Amino acid sequence: MSRKRASVAAAGPNWLTDEQQRAWLAYIRIQLRLSYEMNRQLQTDSNLSLADYDVLVALSGAQEGRMQVTALAAQIGWERSRLSHHARRMSKRGLVHCELAATDRRATDISLTEEGWRAIDEAAAGHVDLVRRLFFGGLPKTLIAPLATALEGIYDNILKEGSLPPPDAGPSNES
Amino acid sequence: MSRKRASVAAAGPNWLTDEQQRAWLAYIRIQLRLSYEMNRQLQTDSNLSLADYDVLVALSGAQEGRMQVTALAAQIGWERSRLSHHARRMSKRGLVHCELAATDRRATDISLTEEGWRAIDEAAAGHVDLVRRLFFGGLPKTLIAPLATALEGIYDNILKEGSLPPPDAGPSNES
Repeated sequence: MSRKRASVAAAGPNWLTDEQQRAWLAYIRIQLRLSYEMNRQLQTDSNLSLADYDVLVALSGAQEGRMQVTALAAQIGWERSRLSHHARRMSKRGLVHCELAATDRRATDISLTEEGWRAIDEAAAGHVDLVRRLFFGGLPKTLIAPLATALEGIYDNILKEGSLPPPDAGPSNES
Repeated sequence: MSRKRASVAAAGPNWLTDEQQRAWLAYIRIQLRLSYEMNRQLQTDSNLSLADYDVLVALSGAQEGRMQVTALAAQIGWERSRLSHHARRMSKRGLVHCELAATDRRATDISLTEEGWRAIDEAAAGHVDLVRRLFFGGLPKTLIAPLATALEGIYDNILKEGSLPPPDAGPSNES
């Protein structure tokens, strides 16, 4: 049976305007390939997955390299169960330490170990180099500011409209 | 031991310019949260994961809803082994059909089943609605075109500089 259908992705049922469709297709294509490339570079050069890296970067930006599971999950957009599971595996590799939170014994803190600090320090340069080459290498300078403004608007909207709690909703901000 | 370090993500070791850093941080934050939200919406409303959806959309845009594993993997930016594994699971759910390729018996074709066509048709509206609400809801109209142009430039550069083969490199283009 020969079958001819409009592509949901390519033509779309005109639910997005043509310009929206252009922007969305490019976004989703970048996202798919860039995640692959970032993961590959990190695995090859630093023995880290992109997921490991996301966790390490978030912790490295937190006070004393420590966050509660809930706050860290909210920051990197993961479900708590996924993060708990992943953190246990990173803990076995010596990158993070998981323990009951000092402020709330029902909660768990994840913190960077010395080894975790070293891993993120060593991995960052190669990762940023890839980002600069793949992401910014094809971007005219005049488009960087409009791109940043557009993406920041989108991010703020996702925080407002999305289902995940916003980042920085940890105990340090609540008390 | 109290420890104070600059955040790799937030301050950065000045490997990106300030404007690049703004754009990149917003991009990566969107990517993390939006993937979560898209996956959640698809699971809740259509019993599909975002990974299922990516496969179904790519196939729905191909001739007769069929692609070789290698070409499909290149299009959605997955490793072949991941796609083969995932397609087998989708096949068990009746969404796709896997068989030896007609043109090359060493290759595998993945094609949409009737059930797969129905699944993508039914899921698309809710997915696009989410995209319009979360991604475009916070984007001023005047920024859509510059955003599209910027993202298309980045994507072209990733195709040129990245390690994955470009999409549409399947046998139909080679012969």
